[in-house]
Amino acid sequence: MGIKVVTIGGGSSYTPELVEGFIKRYQELPIKELWLVDIEDGKEKLQIIGDLAKRMVKEAGIPMEIKLSLDRREALINADFVTTQLRVGLLEARIKDERIPLSHEILGQETNGAGGFFKGLRTIPVILEIIRDIENLCPNAWLINFTNPAGMVTEAVFRHTNFKNFIGLCNVPLGMHRGMCELLDVKPKRLRIDFAGLNHMVFGLNFYLDGKNIKKEAMAALQRPDSHISMANIMAEPWDPDFIKGLNVMPCPYLRYYWKHGDMLKKDIENFNNNGTRAEIVKKIETKLFELYKDPELKTKPKQLEERGGAYYSDAACELIASIFNDKGDIQVVNTLNKGAITNLPYDSVVEVSSVITKEGARPLSMGDLPEEIIGIVRQIKSFERLTADAAVSGNRIKALTALNLNPLVPSDRIGQIVLDEMLKSHRKYLPNFFNN
Amino acid sequence: MGIKVVTIGGGSSYTPELVEGFIKRYQELPIKELWLVDIEDGKEKLQIIGDLAKRMVKEAGIPMEIKLSLDRREALINADFVTTQLRVGLLEARIKDERIPLSHEILGQETNGAGGFFKGLRTIPVILEIIRDIENLCPNAWLINFTNPAGMVTEAVFRHTNFKNFIGLCNVPLGMHRGMCELLDVKPKRLRIDFAGLNHMVFGLNFYLDGKNIKKEAMAALQRPDSHISMANIMAEPWDPDFIKGLNVMPCPYLRYYWKHGDMLKKDIENFNNNGTRAEIVKKIETKLFELYKDPELKTKPKQLEERGGAYYSDAACELIASIFNDKGDIQVVNTLNKGAITNLPYDSVVEVSSVITKEGARPLSMGDLPEEIIGIVRQIKSFERLTADAAVSGNRIKALTALNLNPLVPSDRIGQIVLDEMLKSHRKYLPNFFNN
Amino acid sequence: MGIKVVTIGGGSSYTPELVEGFIKRYQELPIKELWLVDIEDGKEKLQIIGDLAKRMVKEAGIPMEIKLSLDRREALINADFVTTQLRVGLLEARIKDERIPLSHEILGQETNGAGGFFKGLRTIPVILEIIRDIENLCPNAWLINFTNPAGMVTEAVFRHTNFKNFIGLCNVPLGMHRGMCELLDVKPKRLRIDFAGLNHMVFGLNFYLDGKNIKKEAMAALQRPDSHISMANIMAEPWDPDFIKGLNVMPCPYLRYYWKHGDMLKKDIENFNNNGTRAEIVKKIETKLFELYKDPELKTKPKQLEERGGAYYSDAACELIASIFNDKGDIQVVNTLNKGAITNLPYDSVVEVSSVITKEGARPLSMGDLPEEIIGIVRQIKSFERLTADAAVSGNRIKALTALNLNPLVPSDRIGQIVLDEMLKSHRKYLPNFFNN
Amino acid sequence: MGIKVVTIGGGSSYTPELVEGFIKRYQELPIKELWLVDIEDGKEKLQIIGDLAKRMVKEAGIPMEIKLSLDRREALINADFVTTQLRVGLLEARIKDERIPLSHEILGQETNGAGGFFKGLRTIPVILEIIRDIENLCPNAWLINFTNPAGMVTEAVFRHTNFKNFIGLCNVPLGMHRGMCELLDVKPKRLRIDFAGLNHMVFGLNFYLDGKNIKKEAMAALQRPDSHISMANIMAEPWDPDFIKGLNVMPCPYLRYYWKHGDMLKKDIENFNNNGTRAEIVKKIETKLFELYKDPELKTKPKQLEERGGAYYSDAACELIASIFNDKGDIQVVNTLNKGAITNLPYDSVVEVSSVITKEGARPLSMGDLPEEIIGIVRQIKSFERLTADAAVSGNRIKALTALNLNPLVPSDRIGQIVLDEMLKSHRKYLPNFFNN
Repeated sequence: MGIKVVTIGGGSSYTPELVEGFIKRYQELPIKELWLVDIEDGKEKLQIIGDLAKRMVKEAGIPMEIKLSLDRREALINADFVTTQLRVGLLEARIKDERIPLSHEILGQETNGAGGFFKGLRTIPVILEIIRDIENLCPNAWLINFTNPAGMVTEAVFRHTNFKNFIGLCNVPLGMHRGMCELLDVKPKRLRIDFAGLNHMVFGLNFYLDGKNIKKEAMAALQRPDSHISMANIMAEPWDPDFIKGLNVMPCPYLRYYWKHGDMLKKDIENFNNNGTRAEIVKKIETKLFELYKDPELKTKPKQLEERGGAYYSDAACELIASIFNDKGDIQVVNTLNKGAITNLPYDSVVEVSSVITKEGARPLSMGDLPEEIIGIVRQIKSFERLTADAAVSGNRIKALTALNLNPLVPSDRIGQIVLDEMLKSHRKYLPNFFNN
Repeated sequence: MGIKVVTIGGGSSYTPELVEGFIKRYQELPIKELWLVDIEDGKEKLQIIGDLAKRMVKEAGIPMEIKLSLDRREALINADFVTTQLRVGLLEARIKDERIPLSHEILGQETNGAGGFFKGLRTIPVILEIIRDIENLCPNAWLINFTNPAGMVTEAVFRHTNFKNFIGLCNVPLGMHRGMCELLDVKPKRLRIDFAGLNHMVFGLNFYLDGKNIKKEAMAALQRPDSHISMANIMAEPWDPDFIKGLNVMPCPYLRYYWKHGDMLKKDIENFNNNGTRAEIVKKIETKLFELYKDPELKTKPKQLEERGGAYYSDAACELIASIFNDKGDIQVVNTLNKGAITNLPYDSVVEVSSVITKEGARPLSMGDLPEEIIGIVRQIKSFERLTADAAVSGNRIKALTALNLNPLVPSDRIGQIVLDEMLKSHRKYLPNFFNN
Repeated sequence: MGIKVVTIGGGSSYTPELVEGFIKRYQELPIKELWLVDIEDGKEKLQIIGDLAKRMVKEAGIPMEIKLSLDRREALINADFVTTQLRVGLLEARIKDERIPLSHEILGQETNGAGGFFKGLRTIPVILEIIRDIENLCPNAWLINFTNPAGMVTEAVFRHTNFKNFIGLCNVPLGMHRGMCELLDVKPKRLRIDFAGLNHMVFGLNFYLDGKNIKKEAMAALQRPDSHISMANIMAEPWDPDFIKGLNVMPCPYLRYYWKHGDMLKKDIENFNNNGTRAEIVKKIETKLFELYKDPELKTKPKQLEERGGAYYSDAACELIASIFNDKGDIQVVNTLNKGAITNLPYDSVVEVSSVITKEGARPLSMGDLPEEIIGIVRQIKSFERLTADAAVSGNRIKALTALNLNPLVPSDRIGQIVLDEMLKSHRKYLPNFFNN
Repeated sequence: MGIKVVTIGGGSSYTPELVEGFIKRYQELPIKELWLVDIEDGKEKLQIIGDLAKRMVKEAGIPMEIKLSLDRREALINADFVTTQLRVGLLEARIKDERIPLSHEILGQETNGAGGFFKGLRTIPVILEIIRDIENLCPNAWLINFTNPAGMVTEAVFRHTNFKNFIGLCNVPLGMHRGMCELLDVKPKRLRIDFAGLNHMVFGLNFYLDGKNIKKEAMAALQRPDSHISMANIMAEPWDPDFIKGLNVMPCPYLRYYWKHGDMLKKDIENFNNNGTRAEIVKKIETKLFELYKDPELKTKPKQLEERGGAYYSDAACELIASIFNDKGDIQVVNTLNKGAITNLPYDSVVEVSSVITKEGARPLSMGDLPEEIIGIVRQIKSFERLTADAAVSGNRIKALTALNLNPLVPSDRIGQIVLDEMLKSHRKYLPNFFNN
């Protein structure tokens, strides 16, 4: 008996956070084996992370076995939970995802704009492969994906496979929740927010403090000058308070890519000219982190990991797994099939939505229609995600071109076509569906 | 007996085209009185147009009376059809609509972006006033509106009044139809196109030649190098053929504002720096036109009017009135209440759609869902139109700010707010709902 | 060149009406060959009908060839239009469809209740076979089906095949239209009615006289004591005027099976005890008709055919074919795919609805939501039809049982099960999907 | 401080169960004052119940004050929770509700058919009055209604008032849950069922044992011969196992009124002829109960109350109040506004659905579309409920007639009209909206 967890992309710099999360929850989530799996190219990092994880577990004094493997199929046998945090093409690919679009003055990063689109094209086929393995080797396992772009990946899974035990996860709602708690100066346990939308395009619709609806107070707090709820990895430009007032919901920070695209683009180009891409900065941070991780005296997650961005990921993932395992019935925000949870989005598409989590997975709360103020941009991005998922699966260049051009951050079909071809060529190795047919 | 038509904004330079249209159709549409109505500021132009109209009618030898009036209410008594082609604030206001946004690098003109938004705010209250007059003075009359932005105006009428005899009309579908006929080298009568979408955001979904579906051929023609279906008043940048292939529907020329926003903005700023606004160019054309119109020897519509843009407007309007009057049951493209005609747009909103025209007005053909490729941008603009209509009626600055910022051509909420306040101040005289409460 | 029409079930007693219809429309619909096809069991009747048809054509002096065949596949080659008016199991089967349910006190006939359900089970597989032949032998032909139960048959075709050139046709809307014309004492050409609903469950929603909405007057007329709009083949019990007033739409006569089920059942049982089934009466009428048809002096459709019921069938069919052939664009009422035409019925189901008829077939007018007063019963019967179509195709007894029990005329699941098994046994020969797997 | 609960209809024979429920939950739900309110006609019963309640509380040794009042408005001041369990017209009215329809061979009782319809007409105006009082006297109070017909009452509240703190409650889902637990031989805590539908027309859609989906096993159990899940007050006729198999969901017992209407009607008429109405039997039980209640030695709820029917009502109500008060976030089945929870029922209507219960009330889980097998009958009854609610509020006889005739248990419009008028006359005193305008 005992739980078996398999983390694909186990050599990620994030893994210590995940390991810490599992250690903290050992009482309620007694993992017997944690398999860290990576590919040949990530072998060295996997070893470093694996050694650190073993020291962490030993320090914590719990009987959780850490297993390392380069053979995904071997690892998956009889798994209970699989987590995916992989990056197809590693940071080198991310550098291209950021550098090429910006060189054509296209805003974005690895989940938005042309960069997000390309990460989607590369990632979706790999996730579908993993699912085929799971269907063979551990068909009852839950796959918890926090590989970006999580929205498109989850869309592809629910529309192009029959695998249902899949949940797409993101730390943005947790970050928004904590941000609002700080603004209102209340403990996280006291505040509930109804979240609905898409991955990286999610909104806080209602706010309950100790069960009482405090939407008015929450919206007022968002209009305060100190309200830059922000994420470490995107610029925290403040919203115009009157715009937020009119919007009457809490937007996630990534909405800045759309509602501040002009300002963001200028800053991103400036940043890029001065400091290169975010990917290049991350690469440096990672190099330092792995230096730290190697230290045999390090037996806990180092503080410096927080700089890396992606805080709360481990929390989100561990909480979700614990709730499924223990059939808790608490409310968490996940990416799953809509099926009418948000009435004015397609029934057969994926949404990010507050859901009751049980052994059966995620059951969305009914959210009704998204308000008129936000449905437009959400519907547009949903179209982009649907078409991108279809393009990734089919490897059809025309479909891909259309999908890319529908993204509002792409300035014209003329440029879209140039960027598409430049990136297809550049990422060719990781796009077998486009080149092997 | 005999038909009474009232044209509000009768002093418009377009009027001779309308008069010509009525003359041509006199047999099937025997108008007894054509009232041309304008405001005090347009008195001189009205007189010039009125005199020309009288000469035209006389030349044609038909018993249609031309009446001029500065008193709208007097003119409306017992009208059968009312057409509106007014411009609140005249071309001076249009110059501001174009100049102010462009000075902040916001793309648009009088139906798109910040300029279209402001034209909407000024126009909607005036159209609602006209409707109140019609409800009192000629409640069974049909109001045929081709005042821009026709989509927002029609939205406001159907959501904020109980007046049902209203049809919003635009020449864009007619232009697209003629463009496709040229591409296919067929006579207009032979080709039917299913149109669906919004005003200035309409799409050709299906194409029938002599009743046979020729969508494949039509889409292939659109991908030919010579396919710039265009309008005189927007730049005819060619679409990327592969993008059009992927789109698999015919977009209206105005989609360039969204799918070529980067390129369009650069050209518009360049044009603006070199030649000033389109409004300023139009003003010069109009001055010349009115010089021509004054010539007592001129007894027909002069060729030069075609330069002005807006070709087929008179055709569209006269055809529509003739079909209503004669209960023809033919198919025309109009702006009217959706009520499920396009299933994935709001039931209670206005759409532009192929409709059967009878004495009862416009009955849309059922179009089902708009394809995934276009629903995103259409839904977004519909949100913008709905919120703008609500802001125009309420005069609420916060609502207006939110509406404006949802427009994808507005680069950031920061700039949106600056432009809003600059324009509110600048157009104050024509925005009583915002300043008189 | 010239049109080729194939009538499957050509030995039907209705055929002379169809032939007459084609003769009358020869100018606009120049049929070169009319093939009458039947099965071996119908050989004798086919000969009689064929001889009469030849005399009729000769008398009319037009060059339409009448061809007789027992080989459906031979007949179908290069057909332009195919009509189906067949009865699987002949009148013997109809007698059982009526006799068995009534013996268990189940109301119905060949389109409603258990009888209609069984006719559906027998007919759907045969129609699907014909479609397979058409796809091979004349893939561009139009199939005009007026075989009952037309709603279920059309549902099965649109949900279980990819054949799109199919239109389900019924004379009930025509009968309702004529009935209303009589009530209002106006010529048929002057009155338009918006029809929407399902086959044998259709409603007149709006009424236009010379293009003017006269719903109030039409509803008032329906409340008059003389308003029993009726069909020859069902009892014309008058509606309670206040009920009709509250309903505020015109119900088709078959609604009596639901809204008068108690009274209808009593009368039907009484009738049955006194006179046997309607099928048995029809059988006698048919015998007489065929005696008449044999008369070599008979060269036109005999008056006595009108007794048979089904008036206007030929009109409906000939009008539809003429409109498709001539791309007329007029409005007719047909059974076709919903695709949002009636917003509160399933998108992928079949509805009966006013449609524009062109060379492309039927394009429904957008009807929006059916009113609350009627959507309940319509949705219930739609479920019954969907499930029956699925049962017919799958031959699954459990599905069939569930479908039957959902029919509101079946008094209990206990009796439903008894009747199902009695009829499955009785019609076994005609239910290969249920017995040959 | 301390909770104030007001029970309107406090003199009901059910009240001791409610009091027992509150006593059992005193630790988590410390009610300070429990007001029992009744009308003048119920004064004597109220006194008996009040005395018993006081003895029960004293026996339990808790400081809950029992207050009796005939003045509803006085009682409501500052209430936290209000429960309604009233019967307009007392059992005398119920006798008519059952006797008159049965005398015309209409099946039903106080929540179904003509009887339910009339109970709705009488009850809705009284509930709306109570809401007006609450809005004035305790606007933050929660109104927990278990007055039948709970579906129509809740529909009327959500469509005809702005009061949101309303939850309609019924014991049927609890009974179905316990029944299934018995069938599966598992403890109630281990089994979760997704419930969706309408009041007295609710279905178990999915079944989870310890978080695992066991739908297959649950459906198989329902097909066992011993599966008559039943309620004390309706006849427990077994379902045909194959029908249940095809249905593939668990129907509530009241569905027998529709899917066994023929059999039920025969039995009900027989019962009625032998024993009179259920109301008359209940009346006798009640008389005996009140005799018992009077006994000063009785200090707890007597066993005999269970005979009365309505088991679990107190459980349902007390659980709901405790969850709201303690912001529990558990899942309970309630009647509340749909807002897309069941996608194929109207957005603005009331449904009965599994919901998360917090201080904010009930938030439905997203259920998507009801299966094709059940949507038909559910949609039909929803229409009936909507129209009945509208008729009750407007007092319009035509609306009432239409609503009644849409009920599938009414055998014909002819009889519907007779019964309507007989009952309007008979209940005139309690139908002020129909007679006082």
